[in-house]
Parts: sequence; C-alpha cells; structure tokens
Amino acid sequence: MEIKRKTIAVDMDGVIADTITHFINWYERDFGVRIPIESFHGKPEHEGLPGGAVRRFVYTPGFFRTVPVMKGAREALTELSKSFDIYIVSAAMEFPQSLIEKYEWLKENFSFITWKNIVFCGDKSIIGTDYMIDDHVKNLDLCKGKTFMFTAGHNAGIDTHTRVNNWEEVVTLLKQEL
Amino acid sequence: MEIKRKTIAVDMDGVIADTITHFINWYERDFGVRIPIESFHGKPEHEGLPGGAVRRFVYTPGFFRTVPVMKGAREALTELSKSFDIYIVSAAMEFPQSLIEKYEWLKENFSFITWKNIVFCGDKSIIGTDYMIDDHVKNLDLCKGKTFMFTAGHNAGIDTHTRVNNWEEVVTLLKQEL
Repeated sequence: MEIKRKTIAVDMDGVIADTITHFINWYERDFGVRIPIESFHGKPEHEGLPGGAVRRFVYTPGFFRTVPVMKGAREALTELSKSFDIYIVSAAMEFPQSLIEKYEWLKENFSFITWKNIVFCGDKSIIGTDYMIDDHVKNLDLCKGKTFMFTAGHNAGIDTHTRVNNWEEVVTLLKQEL
Repeated sequence: MEIKRKTIAVDMDGVIADTITHFINWYERDFGVRIPIESFHGKPEHEGLPGGAVRRFVYTPGFFRTVPVMKGAREALTELSKSFDIYIVSAAMEFPQSLIEKYEWLKENFSFITWKNIVFCGDKSIIGTDYMIDDHVKNLDLCKGKTFMFTAGHNAGIDTHTRVNNWEEVVTLLKQEL
C-alpha cells in the first residue's frame, strides 16, 4: 500500500530567502550606511529601512533574483524532502515582476525542487498542506494545517504559532512528526 | 456572525481562456490551413495540431498573453463572485515565460479578480478550495472538494467528474450549492 507523504508549504522571503540581509546590503550599496538588523525588530518589515527603501527595493527588477539563501535552508529542505513533499509557496502575486525572478532563483538555488512543487499566490488561504513554515502571521493564521512561525523582526513577541528560530529547529521539530 | 463564503478554484486554459481556438487561429496564421476543432477530440491536447505545433505555441512568447476569453466566462465569474470567493488557479509553472503573460491577461480581461485571488502552481494537489472547475482530469482527481469537469476534446467520454459544457451550466449548478 502506498503511504501518502505529508506535505509542507515553505515560504520564500524571510524563510528560505534572506531578504533582510539583502535589504541591508542594498541600502548600504546605495547610501553608504549599514543599517543594523535590529532596525527591523518589532515593526512591520517595510519600516525597517529609512525613506521607504524597503518598498522601493521589492519593486526593483533584480531584487528577488539576487537575494541570498537563508542559512541552513538548502540543507534542511534536502533532508526534509526525503520524508515529506515540499512545496515552495510564495505570496509573489503582489509583485508580478518577481514571478520569473523567483522561479529562476529557485531553479538556481533549490534545483531539487521541481516546477510541480512551486506555488505563487496572492493570499495563502486556499493552500491545503499538512504543515506551513512562514514568517508572516497573516499567512499562518489562515492555514488549516500545523504551523511553524520562522523568527523575523516583524513577528517579535508573537506567540500564537510554534516559533522556530532557524532551520535546524525546523528539521528537529518536523522529524518528530514522522 | 460572519458567514465564510465557499471558495472556487477556476482553471485558466480551456476554461476561462479559449486556448483551442487560439491554437487553431495561430496554426492557420502560420500554415494557411484551418484545422477543425474535431481534431482535438478524444486525444491528448498536444496531439490536436500537426507537427507538434501545440507544444511549440505554448512555449512561444505572446501565446498566453493573447488568448481569447472563453465564451461566457467573464459574465459567469462576475455573477459567481457575488456569492463565492473565486480563485484563478493555473498550472502555469511548467511554462515560466507564461507567468507574467497570464498575470497581465487576467488584469486585462478579469480586472475584478485581484492579485490576492490568483494562484500559479505546478500540480494542484495542495489547493484546498471547496470547488474546482477544470478541464484536466489529473487536476480534478487530486481535489478534495467538489469537482466540475469543463468539456474539452481531451476529456471526451470521461465520466468520473460532473461534466459542464459551458459557463451557463456552471452558474446553474453552483447556484444550487448556495
């Protein structure tokens, strides 16, 4: 009998893509000032850089194509994909110019994820996976499955979902589900 | 008390986008021969045109951007969106060049569907809507909700899902679900 593998929806920005480091790097490149990561703590993400730079960057061609991979994400998804069906689920539709960039970024950095397992959406309310890993509470709140909140400055202090601080913790917790 | 509206996943190609007519038109434009629609009957869609033209067209930039709207689709979705939450769910990831074209096509032709309600995916197995309207059995088979099979040449003779022959029939059947 075929045993159906459990499914995991994995977010991109702030989870497998280190967008915060990318914001800080681009800001330094453009303005010569290195904003400390603490600037993103306890507030909406778009307020993390001065002068509305976050919003400008996310609409700039090339931003999503060149974001660094989150530490440990590749190793963790390689490991988890042995036991789970991994779906990359990104709320990319708000930034249509990012669609092809995100696709190409995944192809380059997560080549073991095939196109069949990539989902670009608007809101995530209709995603029906068993697990969801995301940094945004608004996405996790809509998930019918078990949720893991990946630590980010903007979710500081929130305790309505199981917090994971890094990819090692995600792997440990999900292996307990097997 | 807020009553949660039921959700419908609506496919694009062959359902709200008349890809078959577009295939026939492009073939006539390129080769001066008008292939009858019956050529698509009872076989996989990509065998509907001679010489592998279907596969060539779907990888050609501009194909998805210029496809005609399926007869009655706009009126039907306008009507249904009064009572249901409509999500456009397209297995677009196989053709990454189509992502931005499909987004722009929707913006032009279905402007009342916002980016929040657009989903581009690979397989549709993790889509958790209450209803799904699709012409491909492989998508409908994976849906946990109620399914409607939109008539297409390639699904001739299949009776494992509720068949709908046009958008008027979809509206009639879905209104009975309210």
